[in-house]
Amino acid sequence: MLGIRYLSKYCSQRYHMIGELLCKEKPDIVLLQEVWSEKDYLFLKKKLSCTHPYTHYFKSGVIGSGLAIFSKHRIHDTLLHRYSLNGYPYMAHHGDWFGGKAVGMAVLSLGNLTANVYVTHLHAEYNREKDSYLAHRVVQAWELQQFIRHTSAGADVVILGGDLNMHPQDLGNRLLRSYTGLRDAYAETAKFDGCEGGVTLIADNPFISQKEIFPFEKGIRIDYILFKGSSRAEIGCDSMSTTKGSVADSPFPFSDHEALTAELKLDSCVSPQTGNDKPCKNPDSAGNLAELVDIVTEARTEVKVGLHCAERMRYTAARTGVMGLALLFLELAIAAVPWFALGAEQPFPQTSFYLLAALCFAVLLTTFLLYIFYTIEIKSLQGAEDQMRLAVGSLHEKLRGFPATQPHCASMEPPEGQEPPARDPEE
Amino acid sequence: MLGIRYLSKYCSQRYHMIGELLCKEKPDIVLLQEVWSEKDYLFLKKKLSCTHPYTHYFKSGVIGSGLAIFSKHRIHDTLLHRYSLNGYPYMAHHGDWFGGKAVGMAVLSLGNLTANVYVTHLHAEYNREKDSYLAHRVVQAWELQQFIRHTSAGADVVILGGDLNMHPQDLGNRLLRSYTGLRDAYAETAKFDGCEGGVTLIADNPFISQKEIFPFEKGIRIDYILFKGSSRAEIGCDSMSTTKGSVADSPFPFSDHEALTAELKLDSCVSPQTGNDKPCKNPDSAGNLAELVDIVTEARTEVKVGLHCAERMRYTAARTGVMGLALLFLELAIAAVPWFALGAEQPFPQTSFYLLAALCFAVLLTTFLLYIFYTIEIKSLQGAEDQMRLAVGSLHEKLRGFPATQPHCASMEPPEGQEPPARDPEE
Repeated sequence: MLGIRYLSKYCSQRYHMIGELLCKEKPDIVLLQEVWSEKDYLFLKKKLSCTHPYTHYFKSGVIGSGLAIFSKHRIHDTLLHRYSLNGYPYMAHHGDWFGGKAVGMAVLSLGNLTANVYVTHLHAEYNREKDSYLAHRVVQAWELQQFIRHTSAGADVVILGGDLNMHPQDLGNRLLRSYTGLRDAYAETAKFDGCEGGVTLIADNPFISQKEIFPFEKGIRIDYILFKGSSRAEIGCDSMSTTKGSVADSPFPFSDHEALTAELKLDSCVSPQTGNDKPCKNPDSAGNLAELVDIVTEARTEVKVGLHCAERMRYTAARTGVMGLALLFLELAIAAVPWFALGAEQPFPQTSFYLLAALCFAVLLTTFLLYIFYTIEIKSLQGAEDQMRLAVGSLHEKLRGFPATQPHCASMEPPEGQEPPARDPEE
Repeated sequence: MLGIRYLSKYCSQRYHMIGELLCKEKPDIVLLQEVWSEKDYLFLKKKLSCTHPYTHYFKSGVIGSGLAIFSKHRIHDTLLHRYSLNGYPYMAHHGDWFGGKAVGMAVLSLGNLTANVYVTHLHAEYNREKDSYLAHRVVQAWELQQFIRHTSAGADVVILGGDLNMHPQDLGNRLLRSYTGLRDAYAETAKFDGCEGGVTLIADNPFISQKEIFPFEKGIRIDYILFKGSSRAEIGCDSMSTTKGSVADSPFPFSDHEALTAELKLDSCVSPQTGNDKPCKNPDSAGNLAELVDIVTEARTEVKVGLHCAERMRYTAARTGVMGLALLFLELAIAAVPWFALGAEQPFPQTSFYLLAALCFAVLLTTFLLYIFYTIEIKSLQGAEDQMRLAVGSLHEKLRGFPATQPHCASMEPPEGQEPPARDPEE
């Protein structure tokens, strides 16, 4: 498997190089991010038509999701889920908002096994000390784990590849791994050949600025291949490698990130006596659950902080809008005074009047749009926080090991026996 | 279960009535659509806190999804998926675009069974003869079935309730039912008490206009409760009822749609020897598959028609934008002529110049926004069409009963045996 990222310098040459590499190495599954142009995708599709006949380009938004998958194995089905939050449109120089970040899923047949392969790209981190996008990235990680958990129940194997824009022990990463039970290929691999520490963003790369990795001079690891098996299949990582910056016979590397390749070993273990679906590594042990509760609580705190910020920003936008409106009324009043009192003949500072009116309208329009935008942000953050609260409640119940008494009410009538004929206390 | 819809007339009275009804009838699960105001949700939440302690309000967009669920049984997890298409923002009188249509999922424990309960509300049909939203509704139905199929693999029981805005035999409805294997409670119920034909939009209702149901004077059936079981549980409908317009002691009904109530019977059938997850009613028989291929092909055709329309609209927007730009340049040229030739003293028709310039800018801005909007629409339609093409290919392969030869290439090397240790030809 392979994850590669693109930027615009030497674009066509680099797609050519990548096509050559993939033709030569022939990985079973290729996961690409930031393939912004459909032309580039079609170029790769043509180039890889013999080695990777099955492919899908995840379309969404204006620019697209930038996500693509190439496979030797038949893709039966695909699904795209757009994250509800993705930065701010006015932070145009960061550009994340315009990219339409999403997670794409493809259902593949690997022999007699069904694999759900996910590819994603989360919001970038621009300033680790003062990360104004932390809440957004945590919500994205939350939605990612929700999406994977809920869509992978029927899969024998789950593989996730992508640019998570998070360090290995960052909150979102821990949330993702502990909730889904996904394991990090780099942490589990038997053999590794690549940059020290598995870093994928390195100082040597000419496409990145040193600011991006400061203060980690040796580079950072923010691209991952994660996987998990199930009761029907075991999966492990035999070997893993990354590209190491420069490419032989080329003045520039493939991408701004190093490409990851992992050789995964699959063993189907069909045991007809186990009629359940729980993965071999059951994440529901008490220790894991307690850890998960802590992580979700931590994530909830971050989302609340983000919510507080968003509410403050919306308040500021509303206040500025009201001030713009007041200014407009004031101007109209000033304009009306000579008109009423002295007639229309009076000399009137037309140009400054129009300029000021235009300014007022611009302020009103901008603050209105910002107000709408922050309202959407607040709704999304509240939605994520609601889900997290639900999840913590449900995890606590599991931890206690018996069904919770129903909240809110002191005297409870027993639930009507309309639905389940028997209530086993097993859960 | 219950599905109710709201409009704004007598809003608080109707919420009060609905709260009373639910307190009295105490259904296990209540699914509501068009609960636009969070205040109304919180009113119901408080009112039902003793009978339905578990509840979730699905937040999204500016206005919200309007979806809510109340349950006697613990909600463990929720997930929201917004449809990528939902009408046009400039059709403000139809209002669908602003509503942020979505499908919400809640994972419930019903005794020892896990139930995935879905609630949704699709785009309305305003003109059955010339339905300009057909492609949008088909894509929504497609996304709905994708979402249900992919998220319900781990569920013992699946229940969907909502306003699908489609007649029972409409394309989207057939697509949804045949792909997911969901069964219509109205078609399967042993007992039925309600409006003739199970209609949920009736002429008697004072909140709807007669145009909405023309030419079906007896009303139309567009709200549904669908369900399916699995290998671990069987589900059937014992009885079903709808409200019948007027409500005793009240001058107006609960909602513009009639409420649906279904009594579902669940039997858990845990058979440890069947280690698979396939639902009892396996939708993968050859006859079903052939029918499914036809339906998906029909849906694909509708999406292509929609795509063609969207491309034409985008072309028109682009052409209008270019004309606006040309007009602006012409105006600037006309303004520049006296300025260059005769100096600035020349009398100049300032007002008409500004008005015309404002018109040009308005045209440019509008066409730019429309262009962006149509581009998003085209991307979404293309995305759905890509998925449908994939699905048809995969279904054809299943129909043939053996793995397809890989396309595009004449001479194929065998796939490297990197992943599956053995390739059973069973699939």
